[in-house]
Amino acid sequence: MKKKKIVVIGGSAAGPKTAAKARRLDEHAEIILLQKDKDLSMASCGYPYYVGGVFDNRNELISTPTGVVRDPRFFLNAKGIDARTETEVIAIDPQNHSVTCKHLATGDVDTVNYDKLVICTGARPVIPPIPGNDLKGITTLQSMIDADFLRKVRDEKSIKKAVVIGGGLIGIETCEALHLAGIDITVVELAPQLLTFLDWEMAEIVENHVRAKGANVITNNGVAAFLGENGQLTGVKLANGTELPCELAVVAIGVRPNVALAQEAGLSIGSTGGIVVNEFMQTSDPDIYSAGDCVESYNMITGKKVHAPMGDLANLQGRVAGENIILGNSVSFPGVLQTGICKVFDFSAGSTGLTEATAKNRGYDTYETVVNTSPDKPGFMGAGLLISKMLADKNTGKILGVQCVGTGNVSKQLATATMALTGGFTVEQLINLDMPYSPPFSLAIDHFVATAHLMQNKLKGRLQGISPCLVHEKLENNEKPFILDVRGPDEYEQMRLGIGETLIPSGVLRQRLDELPQDKETEIICYCKISLRGYEAQLVLNAYGWKNVKVMEGGVMAWPYPREK
Amino acid sequence: MKKKKIVVIGGSAAGPKTAAKARRLDEHAEIILLQKDKDLSMASCGYPYYVGGVFDNRNELISTPTGVVRDPRFFLNAKGIDARTETEVIAIDPQNHSVTCKHLATGDVDTVNYDKLVICTGARPVIPPIPGNDLKGITTLQSMIDADFLRKVRDEKSIKKAVVIGGGLIGIETCEALHLAGIDITVVELAPQLLTFLDWEMAEIVENHVRAKGANVITNNGVAAFLGENGQLTGVKLANGTELPCELAVVAIGVRPNVALAQEAGLSIGSTGGIVVNEFMQTSDPDIYSAGDCVESYNMITGKKVHAPMGDLANLQGRVAGENIILGNSVSFPGVLQTGICKVFDFSAGSTGLTEATAKNRGYDTYETVVNTSPDKPGFMGAGLLISKMLADKNTGKILGVQCVGTGNVSKQLATATMALTGGFTVEQLINLDMPYSPPFSLAIDHFVATAHLMQNKLKGRLQGISPCLVHEKLENNEKPFILDVRGPDEYEQMRLGIGETLIPSGVLRQRLDELPQDKETEIICYCKISLRGYEAQLVLNAYGWKNVKVMEGGVMAWPYPREK
Repeated sequence: MKKKKIVVIGGSAAGPKTAAKARRLDEHAEIILLQKDKDLSMASCGYPYYVGGVFDNRNELISTPTGVVRDPRFFLNAKGIDARTETEVIAIDPQNHSVTCKHLATGDVDTVNYDKLVICTGARPVIPPIPGNDLKGITTLQSMIDADFLRKVRDEKSIKKAVVIGGGLIGIETCEALHLAGIDITVVELAPQLLTFLDWEMAEIVENHVRAKGANVITNNGVAAFLGENGQLTGVKLANGTELPCELAVVAIGVRPNVALAQEAGLSIGSTGGIVVNEFMQTSDPDIYSAGDCVESYNMITGKKVHAPMGDLANLQGRVAGENIILGNSVSFPGVLQTGICKVFDFSAGSTGLTEATAKNRGYDTYETVVNTSPDKPGFMGAGLLISKMLADKNTGKILGVQCVGTGNVSKQLATATMALTGGFTVEQLINLDMPYSPPFSLAIDHFVATAHLMQNKLKGRLQGISPCLVHEKLENNEKPFILDVRGPDEYEQMRLGIGETLIPSGVLRQRLDELPQDKETEIICYCKISLRGYEAQLVLNAYGWKNVKVMEGGVMAWPYPREK
Repeated sequence: MKKKKIVVIGGSAAGPKTAAKARRLDEHAEIILLQKDKDLSMASCGYPYYVGGVFDNRNELISTPTGVVRDPRFFLNAKGIDARTETEVIAIDPQNHSVTCKHLATGDVDTVNYDKLVICTGARPVIPPIPGNDLKGITTLQSMIDADFLRKVRDEKSIKKAVVIGGGLIGIETCEALHLAGIDITVVELAPQLLTFLDWEMAEIVENHVRAKGANVITNNGVAAFLGENGQLTGVKLANGTELPCELAVVAIGVRPNVALAQEAGLSIGSTGGIVVNEFMQTSDPDIYSAGDCVESYNMITGKKVHAPMGDLANLQGRVAGENIILGNSVSFPGVLQTGICKVFDFSAGSTGLTEATAKNRGYDTYETVVNTSPDKPGFMGAGLLISKMLADKNTGKILGVQCVGTGNVSKQLATATMALTGGFTVEQLINLDMPYSPPFSLAIDHFVATAHLMQNKLKGRLQGISPCLVHEKLENNEKPFILDVRGPDEYEQMRLGIGETLIPSGVLRQRLDELPQDKETEIICYCKISLRGYEAQLVLNAYGWKNVKVMEGGVMAWPYPREK
């Protein structure tokens, strides 16, 4: 039998995974991995932690868990894969089933034939087309070279001020890394918020934490120009005219799929800019597959095409492509939920499925939202805070999305939410989950289940929730609802909103109903620290005839605006 | 309208939750909570951590998260619930809709009427009926009184040696607590293993950790008698005659539902010993409901009745009972998966759904198992170890159960598994999960997804797995398979099994095939540290004609027996 000849372009995540999977399914296939860079199989999501000094050995970014560097020798010996580094593919010839390679060290050009080709060319960072973008001191954090450069910055301690342009995942991780390096950091974001995978009020809570840690954040402002002297960056000029002096700027305003090769080869490119693939990760040419950051993905919630450049998806897609090129189209990749998570200082923040903003953008109008604030485990076990926002469809009860931020075990919440979305769970299916409970790990009713309980209470019309944003809007509009804080006096002394609230602790509420507006139509907004007592207060007031009582969801802990105290 | 009169018996977990839920749904109902003990709404799962000194303020066990003690005054003021402590219910009269109470302080007896009654009498620890079981120094860890006693033991530092009888959840948590108190601890367990919610080889890994931390473990041995002098415990005599001197014995051999009251009232009691309830938490008397550790539950995987005394289930069931007694039977409790988790020293260990042992006991014969060992996140982020065992149905591909142990984020793995079981997921649905990935939280392919990948490889007949137990059995039976360790020489120097293995590192395996038995029918067993390279070795050997190659699942890290090194 003729040996199959497999060529994979790209040596970061999807490429090596594709090649390794293909090898496992066919020991005798010829598998060639072509990589433009010097390094192979880099743990690129780990760059910020190397830059920030979480670990010092650069080789850990390109090693197996047992410490073997994943270089061409490793690929050849351990995997039987012919990995050619510093080898740039400059053209694909689908008719002749061949690719043309340029060997960067020598300039030599040659041709490699394939039976099946897999394009894993990834994505490249967007650089704003503005004056000064070629100055020294401007970088991205996308490659090992970038990571090496920024790590050197850290180690040399020569830089005092830096600006991170873009407040997304990589921007926020870079912010922390450079802050840990002792550099005075400002994050500049064009949007009104950091981390656009979160809704505004959730992102604001993260932003407050980032500021509290000593980093500066400027939102609603873009970069107009890079300023420099003698070819060296000296500052950044913002759209509103502000000039931020800095010696370093890290650009992290997003990435675009690397599709030039695919496009020139005549493959279909989607509206998101990614290579079009079917569920088998097969492009418009049946002998060419593609996986990773260069492809267009299918969002399983919205049914829309999206660009979802994430390291985990690259690996999963590579596994699918690797199997199909060997066995024929036998396994499929179902699509994505656009799950994302990041750590920033003591906070974790993440999202899966729809946010309220994306739901609105997509024209959904039958969703309900709820915010739940709670510790992740009992206080006596050293609890962390969790604030979750859940979206569900009002008609079907199906969960549409979950966001979670806080110092607690956010990744567990999001993993659970991912399963709910994957399984098409309704809220009712989450109400009595038999979760793993013990005090070191969770509350008796896990935060995720409690979030579902709140959603159930809201869908059943019991909990009349109102978001802090709407409360704030009412206050701005001079609407003057009666605002009722039902916490204890000690809590009020420690921390309070100062938005004209009246304090009546929940324990004395039934005795002090005469202090409330006696017109039972008056709008009353209740809250406590997390709004559980706020909810109980609403129910008490309803029972005594007040008709327009709302609970401010998430309580004081989820208030995204400045507090009086 | 006549006020509804609700009586709840029991003030620990299910009782207060039932009462609180009922109150939220009906502000005007009369709600009476009858509690025999002095304390109310105790966080009983937190006792071991109070005993172990994780926290020092006893009030944290009976306080709200904001520090308000949940005493009768709190229940009255904040919840509008008439909580009567030190009030023992001595009889239920279903005909007359009343209960007879004895006030323990005065000895007075009175009668309370109800429209709806909820029995939340919990469970009581089993005390072995053996000589000496009334000696001083023998306790359980089930009540606040027990917790106070053991905390005093800790603080007074007067006790040198203690024996914990029973190696289940509470036993193992007590073992750690007393070890932290500086007491020399021996755990005695009648079964061949600790933590019977795990399969033997998984439990053995936990046991090795417990021993490594300095606690003694004796399995396969029961307690025949407590030994004493002058009414004080001096030791424990085991079934095999061994005498263990000790001044303290903590009995934790399980609990039984407290059903005397229910039984005397003529309510149906199930074969598991728990009160029979339907999905509405309603007993055989339509006006009497029951929730928590005293009821019998339905296992959603096996379809069998079980006793599942867990704090989280008690709360969830209480919520269901509380709603149904107010609104009529409107919400239901679907059943349990028998999910459990505990922390023991640096390990967490848990299980959800079926273990292999329970599957066998239930007569299942179409299940497949797989063991996956991996770090929970990249090594450079300070990885913890995770070892998971998954069961799936061979015919349907449905997940039947997952166990997980290790120093990593076990609770996240089990929460994810719980969702898979709840949703009736097949293995195929877990293969391409869009999980929250970033290096601080997981590997690019999360451990749970990787476990599913291994299961898929096994179900597709690609991975020929063998459990370490079977390998051990073969060696005991002198079967002499060829044993192939494919790790690197450094790894082999650091740690090795010493079971007659030959070391051929995976990177040179293809070049050294001549060192393998040339009879291609010879049984060859491959492994590495975690058995990923072991799997690749199997595929290489298969491709070169060896027909009987197996991978020892979980690798060196999951080997439950003593190692040479």
